[in-house]
Amino acid sequence: MTDTHARRRAALAALLPERAVPAVLVSSLVNVRYLTGLDSSNAAVLVREDGSATLATDSRYIEMTRDLGVEVVEAPDTAGALAAPGTGIEAAHMSVATFRRLGEGLVPLEPLVELLRTVKDEEEIELLRTACAISDQAFSDISEKIRPGTTERQLARILEHRMIELGADKIAFESIVAAGEHGAVPHHTPTDRELRAGDLVTLDFGANYQGYHADMTRTVSLGEPAAWQREIYDLVAAAQKAGREALAPGATAKEIDSAARDLIAEAGHAEHFRHGLGHGVGLEIHEEPFLGPVRNGRLEDRVPITVEPGVYLPGQGGVRIEDTLVTRVGGPELLTKTTKELLVL
Amino acid sequence: MTDTHARRRAALAALLPERAVPAVLVSSLVNVRYLTGLDSSNAAVLVREDGSATLATDSRYIEMTRDLGVEVVEAPDTAGALAAPGTGIEAAHMSVATFRRLGEGLVPLEPLVELLRTVKDEEEIELLRTACAISDQAFSDISEKIRPGTTERQLARILEHRMIELGADKIAFESIVAAGEHGAVPHHTPTDRELRAGDLVTLDFGANYQGYHADMTRTVSLGEPAAWQREIYDLVAAAQKAGREALAPGATAKEIDSAARDLIAEAGHAEHFRHGLGHGVGLEIHEEPFLGPVRNGRLEDRVPITVEPGVYLPGQGGVRIEDTLVTRVGGPELLTKTTKELLVL
Repeated sequence: MTDTHARRRAALAALLPERAVPAVLVSSLVNVRYLTGLDSSNAAVLVREDGSATLATDSRYIEMTRDLGVEVVEAPDTAGALAAPGTGIEAAHMSVATFRRLGEGLVPLEPLVELLRTVKDEEEIELLRTACAISDQAFSDISEKIRPGTTERQLARILEHRMIELGADKIAFESIVAAGEHGAVPHHTPTDRELRAGDLVTLDFGANYQGYHADMTRTVSLGEPAAWQREIYDLVAAAQKAGREALAPGATAKEIDSAARDLIAEAGHAEHFRHGLGHGVGLEIHEEPFLGPVRNGRLEDRVPITVEPGVYLPGQGGVRIEDTLVTRVGGPELLTKTTKELLVL
Repeated sequence: MTDTHARRRAALAALLPERAVPAVLVSSLVNVRYLTGLDSSNAAVLVREDGSATLATDSRYIEMTRDLGVEVVEAPDTAGALAAPGTGIEAAHMSVATFRRLGEGLVPLEPLVELLRTVKDEEEIELLRTACAISDQAFSDISEKIRPGTTERQLARILEHRMIELGADKIAFESIVAAGEHGAVPHHTPTDRELRAGDLVTLDFGANYQGYHADMTRTVSLGEPAAWQREIYDLVAAAQKAGREALAPGATAKEIDSAARDLIAEAGHAEHFRHGLGHGVGLEIHEEPFLGPVRNGRLEDRVPITVEPGVYLPGQGGVRIEDTLVTRVGGPELLTKTTKELLVL
């Protein structure tokens, strides 16, 4: 990956003349990993206009830097070791305290590395493909455990364990398992509530593979769904399909969001779908670009992104369906391939 | 916990007059959880001099706020919804970008909630006790798997799965399993290297229970240790004991660190122990206070903290031994109770 990282640093360096800084101090740990390959809890990297770079980390991680092909300095205060007057800094990541401590002359910049990270190379997409395949397989493998008597917590742990067994490095985020009325809470935390016949059960989960995050959601029915359950399921499935089909290089974040949201609104459920339609995924579970009614920007080619509309009926239940896809000229590539037909278990 | 959270907010409010601000905007998510009980990925809370508070979060988490006994506003831009000229902010947590966006008149403050969080109440210590008991039990349960042929990665996953089975909500941090020469890297990431006879194997791991983090490390020997292995093990064990015994309300961070470090230095290994001796644990895996040669401050009563000296011989191997303890008048309470005799497996 050394060449890959050098290429990324060169791409960042190319953005600096326009910002009128000779170098940028990157202090976001995810961005440091993206630019150097070092995955640590304390590091920063200075990238100069000429593409050269210096990585700072503390003694715990020095051994890991040997093969990275970049100059390294050992310092507990990693940002302090690299900052100099006139240097650009990541305003979204550096704290007010650090900024004040490092003194005069630093230049706050808008997100640059995040801009580069939005469009993935094929190597990154392959890692995401693997993360999504693990997630699909785990869901399939544990689906017989989605039955009355299993608790939300148990189901979350079984699913997470299966992803690890299948080769995930870790879980991509804390799994959501929401049964019955809990399905009305988009970010429900699994409890000891047992699944019961008649529940819709929403599972939102994903594997992390070599740093890359899968994200998928399926809602299943325990027993034949009631009319209202079938109705909102079909509505969300149609909205999700419309959202997927709107994903294209050149489409705006707003119009993709509208493609799905308008269907839900026309069905009278506008107030039951109040979060954004989706988000980029990669080295972070939520990253640029974001899809929503007040989001700006257009998608490019090779952008991994989720499409995840939902309908949430307070006190009653909810449905969310989510895939991870990649924008492609000619139509998006679907990475999470589990069926979106309503599974009746 | 509502009373607990109200009491914590009152303690924070009592610190404000001295900072000459009428209110403080708390934007660290861990601190918001500490002050309100809300565990989310987007929230902020404004605490006023009179002890009243307003919590902001977005639509995904609104349902979770119903029983928190605090005023709530729904807003995607949580800090923006609460900021007003003259309000104090957490300088260590607010980004430069947010600070600039929210405009004039915000007052950067030093860490206040972290100060309160250092000393735990007995309810918190009980949660830590449970997290540590799960960690101990998991280590005991999986110890027969620490044998030649198991890979570092496999061992890490087995250990983590056992903690979850025993009731952990999640792992406290990414486990370190470092065999043989990998033991020379304090923060080694588990690989596919198989354990072999003659290896020292270092396992650094812990359970998270209801938000509270256990942290423990043991180094074991696969087969009878060589003389050099026994020598550094005994040295680190003696240093760890000295560090534990120095833990007392009133002791300084430096003198506790010295108690352990001096023994290692006298044995000629000063350059092989370059990280701090320990750190506070609680809602974060690393929090105040930190023990090290350049750390300031004195311990108080009821401070959960780790003691974790190590000796790392590049290319050869290493030993680290770590406990989580709580400072108490009359001597520290040990929470991680696994033996520190060298286990020969």
